[in-house]
Parts: sequence; structure tokens; C-alpha cells
Amino acid sequence: MSRPGCLITLEGSEGVGKSTNLVFVQQWLEARGVEVVTTREPGGTAFAEQMRELLLAPRDEVVAPIAELLLMFAARAQHLAEKIEPALAAGKWVVCDRFTDATYAYQGGGRGQSTEVIAQLEQLVQGDRRPDLTLLLDMPLAAAADRVRSRGLPTDRFESEQGDFFMRVRQAYLQRAETQPYICVVDASEDLAQVQQSIVTHLTALWDACGG
Amino acid sequence: MSRPGCLITLEGSEGVGKSTNLVFVQQWLEARGVEVVTTREPGGTAFAEQMRELLLAPRDEVVAPIAELLLMFAARAQHLAEKIEPALAAGKWVVCDRFTDATYAYQGGGRGQSTEVIAQLEQLVQGDRRPDLTLLLDMPLAAAADRVRSRGLPTDRFESEQGDFFMRVRQAYLQRAETQPYICVVDASEDLAQVQQSIVTHLTALWDACGG
Repeated sequence: MSRPGCLITLEGSEGVGKSTNLVFVQQWLEARGVEVVTTREPGGTAFAEQMRELLLAPRDEVVAPIAELLLMFAARAQHLAEKIEPALAAGKWVVCDRFTDATYAYQGGGRGQSTEVIAQLEQLVQGDRRPDLTLLLDMPLAAAADRVRSRGLPTDRFESEQGDFFMRVRQAYLQRAETQPYICVVDASEDLAQVQQSIVTHLTALWDACGG
Repeated sequence: MSRPGCLITLEGSEGVGKSTNLVFVQQWLEARGVEVVTTREPGGTAFAEQMRELLLAPRDEVVAPIAELLLMFAARAQHLAEKIEPALAAGKWVVCDRFTDATYAYQGGGRGQSTEVIAQLEQLVQGDRRPDLTLLLDMPLAAAADRVRSRGLPTDRFESEQGDFFMRVRQAYLQRAETQPYICVVDASEDLAQVQQSIVTHLTALWDACGG
């Protein structure tokens, strides 16, 4: 039996550099000889990706916030059962683009769903499973919005929200970081080398604690 | 302000005659001058129907029972918020092909999900909303299965389950009926005139209590 792997998640609003740094984390870990599974939420399995499509698709119908929240946790439950937990049990490290802290930020902060209800669903779906390390990439909203715009892609149902939605999302993320010791805030407004140096510091601490 | 409408649900396994009797209930009510909205679960709005498709589609991927349960309640939350509650508030009567008792039967009895968890989600999504009358169409499994086969349609992810799954579903339905006073069991193995006479008895009792 191999030792179980660790779960690392990347969090932050659109445009903070999660994709770039997810590859960086993956390569850093692979260079140390561990097998890495990269994945994302919502999604990560064929079924969960179909739920992602329903969540992100712009639509005329008003989406009830509680329906969005439950659909998010349905996708997460599938992702955990069919991908994340088996990988961790097999000794692989899982690096995931967004996880439950995004639910606290977007459905909690953004949509105003109660933190208690989110915590209940987290417990129901995850039991004791929490990330071993969450890198919260944080930067001022205006700069992140510039990056999103520069991609020139059509916006999804979340990206098309208004400015104060993202302000509440960022605020909720930062509040989570104050209470959850596994969350490390990384200043994503620095240049990339600086950002990645900060990421390496956090990865090294985790590696020394449980991977090395 | 009109008086709020009532919520009537039809329950039972595949092949017990829900569709036929849903139309019968609708016509009985319309003949008494109320406006009736007929609908179904999972589904009932464009968004919830998309969730229905994900729930029913046969798939190779193993579906985590808790993911199925949460997706079912996500669809229900949307259906309630965008269709059922507005209709009831406007004084319309809602007649729904399946509702939460199906979740107790299929995800509880069939899949083995805990009744306590289902009750928690029911409370979260519905608050105090319960059907005013549930007609549970019950008949022996073999006869119902004959009717389903005679339709010659491709089977969905639930219909393709094995016999003992449907035995547990039927059992769970009948147990619900013992504890929930709004559920009336109708012997659906009788001929249609007999079944509908029984339905009229229950409808009349509800009508006298709150509609008449």
C-alpha cells in the first residue's frame, strides 16, 4: 500500500492566473517523483463536466441560488467519488482548479447563500476531506478583469456578473483564508516569478510535512 | 389576492398508470373551475429538464448515489422556485408526476441513501412545503413491468435497474404511506374505472377540505 497522496487546490477569481500556476504546481511535484492528477471544479469526470456545462451556461431562466448550490455539490460528490478519492488512495497527488472554498466564495459571498448551509453540504459530501493546501491567488479586481477581457472569450454565467458580485467573492475568499489554516494567500498581482516563488514556499512546507 | 392552490402529486413505479391518471386529475379539477398546472419531476422548467436528462441518461460512469440525490434536489429546488411556488401563490392547483416521495423511494429505498439525509435536504429545499395530497398508485411489480415492456421504449438509467431495486422502491413507497398522512394508496391493479373512482374519493376529500 502506498502512502495516500495530498490534495492541493488553487482558488481565486477569474483572471488571477490559476491555469498557469496549476501547471507550475504539477511540474514542481512531478520533479519530486510523485504521480500527479490535475483536475478542475465544477467538473473532473464526464458526468460532472455535464453538470459544469449546466452551471456555466448563460440562460434566460432565473437560477434559484439553492439549485445552483446543490448542483455544485452534486458535481463535487461525483468528482470526489470517481476521481479524487481513488487517486489519493492510490498515492497520487491531486491538484484541482477550484474546490469547496470557491463555493463559499461564489455561492456564499457572491449569491448570499448561508455559510451554515454550505458547511452542512460540505460535511455531507466530503466527510472529513479538506484540501491539504489551498493556494488562494488574490489580486485587485480591476487587474484581474483586464486579464479576463484580454482573452477575448465569451463570458459564462458567472463571468457575466457585475462588479460588486466579484467584490463579495473576493471578500469571502479572504475571510475563508482567515479561518481555514490550509489556505495560503498568494499575492497574484506580483510578477510571475515572484508569485511562483511564494507558491514554492508553500509547496515546500507541505512537502516537508507530508510528502518528503 | 386569490386563495393559494393545492399541490397534488402522483407517485408509483414505472407502469402503474401515472400519466393517464394525471390527465384524469387535471380534468376533474378543471371541471370544478380551478386553473391547473401539470408538471413532472425531475424536471418542470427548462433548466430542471436539463438536470432530468443528466439523471436519466444511461451512462458507463458509475454514478455516486449522493451525487444523484443532490442533483435530484437541485432540480426540485429550481422547479419549486420557478414554477410550483409561483403557481400555488397565484391560486393555481399544481398536479405533479412524482415529487419528493419518489426520492425517498428511489434514492432511499432503491439506492440505500439514508432517510435522515433525504429529510435534511427536503427541509433545506422545501421548508414546510409538502403535497396536500399524494396519490400513490400501487400494484404488483410483475404487472407494472409488463406495461412498461409493452410500450417498447428504450429504458432509462432507472428503468434498466434489476428486479430487487424495484421491490425496494415499492416497499419504501408503502412505508412512506404509513407515516405520511397526505399519501393515499390507490390499488392500481384494479380496472381503470375502479382506480379512478378511488382517486375521485381522495380528490373530493381534499376539495371539501380546502378547495370547495
